[in-house]
Amino acid sequence: MAGLFITFEGIDGCGKSTQAARLVDALRAAGFEVVSLREPGGTAISEKIRALLLDPANAEMADECELLLYEASRAQLVRQVLEPSLARGAIVVCDRDDDSTYGYQHGGRGLDEDLINTCNALGSCGLDPDVTVIFDLAPEVALSRATKGGADRLEGEGLAFQHRIRAAYQRLAEKEATRVRVVDADGGVDEVYARLVACLSDVLPQLRDGEGN
Amino acid sequence: MAGLFITFEGIDGCGKSTQAARLVDALRAAGFEVVSLREPGGTAISEKIRALLLDPANAEMADECELLLYEASRAQLVRQVLEPSLARGAIVVCDRDDDSTYGYQHGGRGLDEDLINTCNALGSCGLDPDVTVIFDLAPEVALSRATKGGADRLEGEGLAFQHRIRAAYQRLAEKEATRVRVVDADGGVDEVYARLVACLSDVLPQLRDGEGN
Repeated sequence: MAGLFITFEGIDGCGKSTQAARLVDALRAAGFEVVSLREPGGTAISEKIRALLLDPANAEMADECELLLYEASRAQLVRQVLEPSLARGAIVVCDRDDDSTYGYQHGGRGLDEDLINTCNALGSCGLDPDVTVIFDLAPEVALSRATKGGADRLEGEGLAFQHRIRAAYQRLAEKEATRVRVVDADGGVDEVYARLVACLSDVLPQLRDGEGN
Repeated sequence: MAGLFITFEGIDGCGKSTQAARLVDALRAAGFEVVSLREPGGTAISEKIRALLLDPANAEMADECELLLYEASRAQLVRQVLEPSLARGAIVVCDRDDDSTYGYQHGGRGLDEDLINTCNALGSCGLDPDVTVIFDLAPEVALSRATKGGADRLEGEGLAFQHRIRAAYQRLAEKEATRVRVVDADGGVDEVYARLVACLSDVLPQLRDGEGN
């Protein structure tokens, strides 16, 4: 594909959504066509699936159902938005992608790793990110940020759950060191953003050049 | 599992829902505990997924998304209802199951057979029906029945689509001749029901005994 596909990952409250918004603004200011997405979501159908997944009324949801709903939402996003955007050369910045499924469903819920990888291959329709940035933060710090607005169904799982997810992300970064990069998310927004720009300097040198302006 | 798991399959308008209701009534009259289900659906979460799948407003749904939504709905049904029902010895009669995914997504939409089988293994959580009855009917006859009440999103696909589904069901019956049985669905409700009772006589001889009453 002609474009660039960047995903942001991390536990709840790690600050990745704030950083994603800032990166998108900077890239647009630099003249790029940028498509800003979040998972689950990003299409009308995917947003309906997102509503099912995050509704606390659906607490009886089986692990396998949850996993397959994430993949369904993802497949729609890939076919309807990601593939056409990348084909015309856009930069796609996606807040969460299939590494979240690895982190949350394998790390957090303990579902089998091979099962998750099979499902991710289905949901992503074979399309992998060029670069993935994991915003790493102690769950104690992250959870206090994330629950300020009231916990949704996933955030209600508690601290031990977030610790398991963080560990899964760390394993992923070790296994796929070229694609998956870790940014220390402890600190102010400006501080973390500067780390992000440095982390992306090989694929987006324009960001660093723009910093001095 | 202790119970008996029966699924009904066929193209739209083949009459299987009417036959399922009649079988359920007869089994209850004979003193069995019967759990009557339909796919997609059968739990609060699965019914919400069903609504997404059948809403004509979601016509832009990608094939992979549709497939994964069916599997998500199924996994919830298996974990929440099917497994506990069979464990306590109930007879479960399910109007559609993963053979519908084979028929519609592989036969109808042309998705890869291995992909469908992988997805079905995920969605069914490894639980297969003891007996599957395919109600076979010419698509021309079936479609005129099915669209009397207004076509939903799937039924709007037309006659060629139904022909491909019927052919996929026939291949399935050839491949799994013990589990999968074909009943001729052309004829009146009583006539087809008599064929169904004969078809199930090895697993449910009580039905035939009750016919004379």
